[in-house]
Amino acid sequence: MKSLQPQRSDKFTFGLWTVGNRGADPFGLPTRPVLEPVASVRKLGEIGAYGVNLHDNDLIPIDATSADRDLIVRDFKSALKDAGLVVPMATTNLFTDPAFSDGAFTANDPGVRAYALQKTLAAIDLGVDLGARTYVFWGGREGAEVDAAKDPVEAIKRFRDALNYCCEYVRDQKYELRFALEAKPNEPRGDLYFATTASYLAFIETLDHPDMVGVNPEVAHENMAGLNFLHVVAQAIEAGKLFHIDLNDQKFGRFDQDLRFGSESIKTLFFVVKLLEESGYDGPRHFDAHAYRTENADGVWDFARGCMRTYLILKDKARQFREDAEIQALLAEIRASDAADEALLAPYSRGSLAQLRGRQFDRARLASRTLPYERLDQLVIDLLLGVR
Amino acid sequence: MKSLQPQRSDKFTFGLWTVGNRGADPFGLPTRPVLEPVASVRKLGEIGAYGVNLHDNDLIPIDATSADRDLIVRDFKSALKDAGLVVPMATTNLFTDPAFSDGAFTANDPGVRAYALQKTLAAIDLGVDLGARTYVFWGGREGAEVDAAKDPVEAIKRFRDALNYCCEYVRDQKYELRFALEAKPNEPRGDLYFATTASYLAFIETLDHPDMVGVNPEVAHENMAGLNFLHVVAQAIEAGKLFHIDLNDQKFGRFDQDLRFGSESIKTLFFVVKLLEESGYDGPRHFDAHAYRTENADGVWDFARGCMRTYLILKDKARQFREDAEIQALLAEIRASDAADEALLAPYSRGSLAQLRGRQFDRARLASRTLPYERLDQLVIDLLLGVR
Amino acid sequence: MKSLQPQRSDKFTFGLWTVGNRGADPFGLPTRPVLEPVASVRKLGEIGAYGVNLHDNDLIPIDATSADRDLIVRDFKSALKDAGLVVPMATTNLFTDPAFSDGAFTANDPGVRAYALQKTLAAIDLGVDLGARTYVFWGGREGAEVDAAKDPVEAIKRFRDALNYCCEYVRDQKYELRFALEAKPNEPRGDLYFATTASYLAFIETLDHPDMVGVNPEVAHENMAGLNFLHVVAQAIEAGKLFHIDLNDQKFGRFDQDLRFGSESIKTLFFVVKLLEESGYDGPRHFDAHAYRTENADGVWDFARGCMRTYLILKDKARQFREDAEIQALLAEIRASDAADEALLAPYSRGSLAQLRGRQFDRARLASRTLPYERLDQLVIDLLLGVR
Amino acid sequence: MKSLQPQRSDKFTFGLWTVGNRGADPFGLPTRPVLEPVASVRKLGEIGAYGVNLHDNDLIPIDATSADRDLIVRDFKSALKDAGLVVPMATTNLFTDPAFSDGAFTANDPGVRAYALQKTLAAIDLGVDLGARTYVFWGGREGAEVDAAKDPVEAIKRFRDALNYCCEYVRDQKYELRFALEAKPNEPRGDLYFATTASYLAFIETLDHPDMVGVNPEVAHENMAGLNFLHVVAQAIEAGKLFHIDLNDQKFGRFDQDLRFGSESIKTLFFVVKLLEESGYDGPRHFDAHAYRTENADGVWDFARGCMRTYLILKDKARQFREDAEIQALLAEIRASDAADEALLAPYSRGSLAQLRGRQFDRARLASRTLPYERLDQLVIDLLLGVR
Repeated sequence: MKSLQPQRSDKFTFGLWTVGNRGADPFGLPTRPVLEPVASVRKLGEIGAYGVNLHDNDLIPIDATSADRDLIVRDFKSALKDAGLVVPMATTNLFTDPAFSDGAFTANDPGVRAYALQKTLAAIDLGVDLGARTYVFWGGREGAEVDAAKDPVEAIKRFRDALNYCCEYVRDQKYELRFALEAKPNEPRGDLYFATTASYLAFIETLDHPDMVGVNPEVAHENMAGLNFLHVVAQAIEAGKLFHIDLNDQKFGRFDQDLRFGSESIKTLFFVVKLLEESGYDGPRHFDAHAYRTENADGVWDFARGCMRTYLILKDKARQFREDAEIQALLAEIRASDAADEALLAPYSRGSLAQLRGRQFDRARLASRTLPYERLDQLVIDLLLGVR
Repeated sequence: MKSLQPQRSDKFTFGLWTVGNRGADPFGLPTRPVLEPVASVRKLGEIGAYGVNLHDNDLIPIDATSADRDLIVRDFKSALKDAGLVVPMATTNLFTDPAFSDGAFTANDPGVRAYALQKTLAAIDLGVDLGARTYVFWGGREGAEVDAAKDPVEAIKRFRDALNYCCEYVRDQKYELRFALEAKPNEPRGDLYFATTASYLAFIETLDHPDMVGVNPEVAHENMAGLNFLHVVAQAIEAGKLFHIDLNDQKFGRFDQDLRFGSESIKTLFFVVKLLEESGYDGPRHFDAHAYRTENADGVWDFARGCMRTYLILKDKARQFREDAEIQALLAEIRASDAADEALLAPYSRGSLAQLRGRQFDRARLASRTLPYERLDQLVIDLLLGVR
Repeated sequence: MKSLQPQRSDKFTFGLWTVGNRGADPFGLPTRPVLEPVASVRKLGEIGAYGVNLHDNDLIPIDATSADRDLIVRDFKSALKDAGLVVPMATTNLFTDPAFSDGAFTANDPGVRAYALQKTLAAIDLGVDLGARTYVFWGGREGAEVDAAKDPVEAIKRFRDALNYCCEYVRDQKYELRFALEAKPNEPRGDLYFATTASYLAFIETLDHPDMVGVNPEVAHENMAGLNFLHVVAQAIEAGKLFHIDLNDQKFGRFDQDLRFGSESIKTLFFVVKLLEESGYDGPRHFDAHAYRTENADGVWDFARGCMRTYLILKDKARQFREDAEIQALLAEIRASDAADEALLAPYSRGSLAQLRGRQFDRARLASRTLPYERLDQLVIDLLLGVR
Repeated sequence: MKSLQPQRSDKFTFGLWTVGNRGADPFGLPTRPVLEPVASVRKLGEIGAYGVNLHDNDLIPIDATSADRDLIVRDFKSALKDAGLVVPMATTNLFTDPAFSDGAFTANDPGVRAYALQKTLAAIDLGVDLGARTYVFWGGREGAEVDAAKDPVEAIKRFRDALNYCCEYVRDQKYELRFALEAKPNEPRGDLYFATTASYLAFIETLDHPDMVGVNPEVAHENMAGLNFLHVVAQAIEAGKLFHIDLNDQKFGRFDQDLRFGSESIKTLFFVVKLLEESGYDGPRHFDAHAYRTENADGVWDFARGCMRTYLILKDKARQFREDAEIQALLAEIRASDAADEALLAPYSRGSLAQLRGRQFDRARLASRTLPYERLDQLVIDLLLGVR
């Protein structure tokens, strides 16, 4: 099916760390060889991706000299050009090095906080140099196992200071760059601060430049807490804060699986794709996942193709949903509303209050309205399973 | 121990629905007789509570006449006075009646939404009449099992409209009343909108009168999602939005247990009590829990006394923590910071940037700092277990 | 599609309590009228079910006289005959009445244990009278919130005594009846004993007549603990102990949702249906679920039809899986094995040991085998989504 | 307090991999230097441990020559002797090497299965040589992400073949060695086969030599699935199958945390310690945990001391529980039983049946029994918090 071939216009992106994941885990050694960034870029271009994202150290080793860096960046840009790819998003690795073992922006040691900031500014420069318009913050070490050791109120203040600093820097540099904050409830820390996307939405409003900052919700991260990812994305969209999105998959209530997009949460992710497509979101569809540890180097590309393919299948089903007469008729019935009732919901005034107060409601009648949700949900299941 | 006797000044409160819970559950009939509100008030006064909270229909039957209502309120006020109790918080029952089966403020049917609003205004009047200064919103039916049926973006807008209406009403009436929003991830709905306290913190900033609105975090509700309740409360406090708190307990990742405060999450709740006591929070310590179904009418009061007792034990341990020289010395070591490093964290300016950029960080040295968290956490365990 | 019309031979069954569920929950009143057993039977016959299952008190009120009972049974049998339905399974309600608030077979009070046994024997008689060949035990109150109160070792012994008694009774009565034990991790108790199907599999081997006793795994119950239901059913089948199965659906790590079969866990339930159909399991496909509380009386039947329809869709996809040349070729590649390697796995003998010890394994070669699981899983997703 | 000093007779053991854990995790590099086995042994002796356990490759590198091996073993035995430690348990690493990426005993490739068996036999020899009497099997790679790829029924058969082979080997060698099977629900695989201890209890009964095989329950692993660990251990003890135990801690429903024993689940672990001490279990108390990644080399020993200390504190509280007159009086009241009721529970006979059938039960009276569990549980909380 032609519509299932990824196009640049689909804006599918992958991180260097996703296709470059070597299959190591807490109980096992790597199973795949190193994949050079330049090779990733070439291959991503071939399979129809739009862009590639990166942490600073995905591309530039943490101990690289300035000369090394320049050479690497030059070659990488050249590979991007050849492949027809862009770098829409960049981020900083503030979790791998033991210096960050107790946090980066929230560490108790001001030396660590300062180093994290310095490293981030350099990574912002790198990202902007590569063309990124979105910069993601994921605080992989911002959390605690021992709540006696770090003050969770102070942690928020420290994180705010860091974000405000970065915002000022970007403004001063006149970069066209927005920030997107990425939440996760736990792992690698026992509990991470800003455990959910909503936590960041609340935090953003307390920043000096809230307009520059949005969120980057990730399926797996909200699934870890058993939350409804559709509702998470909906709140971000409603707030005008969906600046980026990390698509993958995950079973609820367990370790961070980073599975191929759509391989588990089929129904919820159908609604997420539908919402993304219908909401006007025009940012990247970023796949933050990796191949099973059992895959070899080739299997990584089966994984990558699968992410995009399932997205496109679900997108096409969203179209079918809109065009399905029976579904639409049922929705119309479900959403039918009475104008007199609507009128009672006018904004507050003494007049509207009097109207509302004067109405006698018949609870039994309200309760008797038909809500054929089993029928509707079964139509969705039929649609998803391809029997409509 | 004298310090374990509840005093009015401890501001312990219970809901009529908590001590009045009759022990019914999805698989079983009630095991306890009806407890009249007036009897609850008398007994709560005896055991040292400060106040009692209520849903409108905890006190006034949904089909009461105006005359019934007046009589009930008169007797209830009299009982409050006799018992020396106040009503610091009130709320609306928008979940029991079948009229609300698909939501109240977020229902698709505008008639339901209007009725919910009308009912809430009446309940606000009742609460204010009884002296309440805080009004809680818990949207027990605001959610979905079938995401095709309700638009989660629209749901937020509807909820906002309702809140804005209520805020205007309270302002127009010149009531001294603040709102506190209470989140829950699921149950009774498959997924509730505004699944976490943080979700409400974000939402509040989008209201017309955000200053009037805060949150009412509940231990059990955040535990259901496996979140760290200390971190949840910390964010609310840092945002100046902790208007009320629901104290109970719950194992992670399961049905809403509403267990006696401190009966499960001993360590986390120690830190929560410590934070409440040290943060300047001066609102009620509300116990939103109920006795096991196996208890009879007397056991309800064992339950209620246990909630207060454990709070006071943990409060006393917070004092010990502050006064424990070994713990404080360890904390001082952990939090010791270098002034030169601190200086690097000055707010952004071209000057501070130059300073930060110019610093050469020694990653190995940063990583080598001693972080004796196992020792600290064991001291906390020793303190909690009473062996210090 | 003809294959999606339920036939008697599909052996679809429902409990009286499932279609008769009135939509009450811990926070809300019933939303649907009482549905008489006789009406349920008639309607189940119309929609193509094979049978109907029941707790004693689904049919006979707990305080019915003997004469009442006889009349009810007579009418019910007549309805079954008219509808062409059978009663393949029966069970006892040992959870609704307050007498069982702290357990039935595991209660501390021997009076409660004896009453539970007496009630169960009567319910067994009723079940056999109605033609049941399988008798289910679900210990809804066998558990604890307070582990100090009940000895969990003693609880197992008490449950064993009860089961042994029932087995002897059935043998003495010469009933053709097998027992199936149904596990659940929690709800309504804080923790239920025998929390998982596997726990019962282990327990069965300690009974006096283990051959008479098997398990009745339920999707929702294992999902509550985040377990893989396919693996649960596989162990039961491998042990020859799958005597019955409860099909429904549920999100992980939350309250008991009892959702329409296949409405959430699409991929896992595809593999479960495939395993049931291919394993030779010939018992009932019992749907232990209920309609959303938002449904009215008609919606219950949409729910019931949906359960059967989704099962049949998944069954048809299992056929496609077997007939799909690409999938089968991939599986053949994945499962290809070397005869010399197979030979090393002969049962233990000094000779086979010498062979095994003498072999030099090349770890790198073993690690290099291609395992194209991303490709295979994507083919499954394509199959499920109907794009193959 | 003297009773809090670990003694050899307490039988506290640690794995080489626990104190030797270097602090790496999926997102971070090691933070601690290599700790040589000989150094671990020396230090464990100093802090009062009884023994040390190991995987083959904790001591012998996977690519060691036979001569290397002999030298390492000689030095290790010498260190054990010097430290006064024993090796009560050993196991095989069947998860780190990429050869095992899709399983060891359950891999599709018979070459992998044969290699796993060969490696296990060599590790058994090593364990026995070091004096081990218990041999643990943890199938870290026995599971799946892709259920299409591996047959879960076949996986059980393969695992059984491997276990039967090992049992025959041990018998033929006349080793005094028992096997203990360790379950885990997931991680590193998406789902592990034999997800719970109970699953292994059921499996054991299907082996050729079930008497040789028991279980090794781990706190963290059952907590990951939200199960009640006390109930898990109780079933193992009741079945006579508690051959070993892995003590640590963990929050429910998340990644494998392996926290210091007793640092989270205070109440449940109190009951577990009480059960271990009172049940006659005389095997090792093995701590399968590791220090936080933030600890340096010294902190590892704070961690190890903390595990033992908390165990001893809880053990002492179990003694207090037994000696507490109020608690014991309450338990006596709760467990009081009527002799006439007890008599109704005689084993099945026609006579006992007639007795049971003839009894008229008063449901209301049964329901009215006082069950003062809130009071009892609060006494436990008081005891745990040291205020009794």
